[in-house]
Amino acid sequence: MNYSSLSKSEQKDLLTSLQKEYETIKACGLALDLSRGKPGADQLDACMDLLNALDANSDPHAENGFDCRNYGLVDGIPEAKKLFADLFGLREDEIFVGGNASLNLMFDTLARAMLFGVLGSERPWGKEPVVKFLCPAPGYDRHFRVSQTLGMELVTVPMTPQGPDMDVVEELVKDPAVKGIWCCPKYSNPDGITYSDETVKRLAEMKTGAKDFRIMWDNAYAVHDLYPDKKDQLADIFALADAAGNRDRIFYFASTSKISFPGAGVAIFAASKANLAQILPYISAQTIGYDKLNMLRHVRYYKTAENILKHMELLATYLRPKFEIVLSTLDRELGNTGCAHWTKPNGGYFVSLFVKEGCAKRTYELCKAAGVKLTDVGATYPYGKDPHDSNIRIAPSYPSREDLQKAMNVLTLCVRIAVLETMVKE
Amino acid sequence: MNYSSLSKSEQKDLLTSLQKEYETIKACGLALDLSRGKPGADQLDACMDLLNALDANSDPHAENGFDCRNYGLVDGIPEAKKLFADLFGLREDEIFVGGNASLNLMFDTLARAMLFGVLGSERPWGKEPVVKFLCPAPGYDRHFRVSQTLGMELVTVPMTPQGPDMDVVEELVKDPAVKGIWCCPKYSNPDGITYSDETVKRLAEMKTGAKDFRIMWDNAYAVHDLYPDKKDQLADIFALADAAGNRDRIFYFASTSKISFPGAGVAIFAASKANLAQILPYISAQTIGYDKLNMLRHVRYYKTAENILKHMELLATYLRPKFEIVLSTLDRELGNTGCAHWTKPNGGYFVSLFVKEGCAKRTYELCKAAGVKLTDVGATYPYGKDPHDSNIRIAPSYPSREDLQKAMNVLTLCVRIAVLETMVKE
Repeated sequence: MNYSSLSKSEQKDLLTSLQKEYETIKACGLALDLSRGKPGADQLDACMDLLNALDANSDPHAENGFDCRNYGLVDGIPEAKKLFADLFGLREDEIFVGGNASLNLMFDTLARAMLFGVLGSERPWGKEPVVKFLCPAPGYDRHFRVSQTLGMELVTVPMTPQGPDMDVVEELVKDPAVKGIWCCPKYSNPDGITYSDETVKRLAEMKTGAKDFRIMWDNAYAVHDLYPDKKDQLADIFALADAAGNRDRIFYFASTSKISFPGAGVAIFAASKANLAQILPYISAQTIGYDKLNMLRHVRYYKTAENILKHMELLATYLRPKFEIVLSTLDRELGNTGCAHWTKPNGGYFVSLFVKEGCAKRTYELCKAAGVKLTDVGATYPYGKDPHDSNIRIAPSYPSREDLQKAMNVLTLCVRIAVLETMVKE
Repeated sequence: MNYSSLSKSEQKDLLTSLQKEYETIKACGLALDLSRGKPGADQLDACMDLLNALDANSDPHAENGFDCRNYGLVDGIPEAKKLFADLFGLREDEIFVGGNASLNLMFDTLARAMLFGVLGSERPWGKEPVVKFLCPAPGYDRHFRVSQTLGMELVTVPMTPQGPDMDVVEELVKDPAVKGIWCCPKYSNPDGITYSDETVKRLAEMKTGAKDFRIMWDNAYAVHDLYPDKKDQLADIFALADAAGNRDRIFYFASTSKISFPGAGVAIFAASKANLAQILPYISAQTIGYDKLNMLRHVRYYKTAENILKHMELLATYLRPKFEIVLSTLDRELGNTGCAHWTKPNGGYFVSLFVKEGCAKRTYELCKAAGVKLTDVGATYPYGKDPHDSNIRIAPSYPSREDLQKAMNVLTLCVRIAVLETMVKE
């Protein structure tokens, strides 16, 4: 039943009974975590053979004869470029292979922009009176934090089921102070939305006031499908940008963080050759080269893009039951209450829960007091402030299924209590 | 015989005969490289068991229970901190363990200073009208390039056998625009000089105009002794800085690049807790963590600082004969000619050759035409300009002994020709 159709006294009775249930659970002293998109140990165990791909008897040379143990090859080994070009549908000569974290490549990219500008900048972004960056929200807190740390002004863009609201984006980018936009275009963090072809096309083609506008295209979940028969397809932004003469607009990022090991994977950056020619001298001042043995380890282990896709199917078998626990619990406990709605993604790492406006913080506090840690409420919005106090990011990957079920029971109970608390006051 | 004591016609005859010798060698079509301080394949082969230290059956957890495969622990795993604290004589709680390259940590450190300032800065360095950085020269070209890339003004400080000329340094640092100094304090690149206790003390204690002055203490060759019975001792700059209340002045860097693999080692940064508290929020915006499995691999393989020192003794057995080839050839071919003098380091990766003023570039060109690549002449000075056109950095580690001997024969021949060419014109 929809809680708003209950009488005030029915709402109060229900609240009292839920509060009793809550006190019982609270007494259990749970310690559960739904806060971060970390792969579970089961997934990581399934990648352990990667560590056997290089041993003391391995040939440490790349296919071009370069000794991967030694200094050099700042842009990565050729076979790693080929593997990731195949996997992500990129051009080998537009790929830069970096260290273990695409976030690091993204931060460095924008730090460079602030210090030196990007291709086509009239001056370093740091010399501009103000740099604004578009943040589709709900979005990834660490994206927003990079821009905020670098002193940029964060401009919220609402998300739609097709991606960022492009009417809003097209209007905002007329401002030359708007230098870029953060995008997690496939199975977006946290909504699990894949940008529609129309959205990608409009991003690639739109006219921008800034000549040096950049799209931070973080394709973090490029091959992270949950269901073999329901795979979202993301349009090729480079191809669409080409048609509009905007290839230089795209800064593309991806990594194996949720393919192999989050702590010890390989990250890549892709951009037009003109962009790379502007960037590489700075990276060459920053380092003599990233870890080439780890690149080689990944290439020797996975060998082909096809094998990586097979591996992702295996990992999905660990993730799928967890998403099913989340979605079925939400359905069962909140389905007809009118307390919340949520996304049902085909991939990625999150379910985005929208509770009744003004109830997210209270839900978070109730969960916390009962031993269930959620992603900080507001984290999915610029400056950590959800204007509707509604969005809660659920990250089901890390806990065991048993713990996840317990945590979801607590979460849905807390949502109902938080919503009823506001209703009885109305 | 000293060439300057020869008559003009004797000089001409000698030059003609050396030129004939040169033409014969040139015809051989050599392709030899003395340019970069890369370990030789023999050294890298001696480290291959490192790759067996982690395999599919290994426990991937750090001693604090953290799963090194997953996200997190931005400052590194505790056992890596302990190992490097023991090895370099640092405090565990002042160590940050990073990725594979200390150069990357150094660049990021100064990029952060430009963007945000350091502890005690009134504003980001990038907002200052000018930032000057002291560059003891001859020095490491990549240090100078970091500062130059970041838009700093490079100020040359002459090197003495005790380290940077401290009378000059103490005078220059009175200028508040001077924000720091590059130091490679042990077996310096390229001179192989270890700073005297007096030099380290004066660096630690000197009064600086800038309140946020920093010493970039790149202890790249901390444990890189060549001879078991001739080990240079470097004073503890943290202890000396403490005595003067200047602990925050020190940014300390080191790595296993020339201990394990240059392309896949582990780099560390050490600084006071107050410095780390200012820095860590920025690094936490930049990355979720560096490669913890590679940290664990190094800890599991080396286990103790003592074992690393033993390993360095083994590596020295590969390097020593190469240094002996360089030094004995210099002695034999240039010893009494007055054409050059050179350093005789007890460790590190280089011999610094000083040819007669105005003859280094010509030597470089002669070598190049005969198929021997040297480090770019001038590279060891700010802006790549050696005011005396005299210094040539010899890097003996990479070529085989046979190739090294050939290259040294060519180099010393070219030095003699270059010097005689100027003499016959005088």
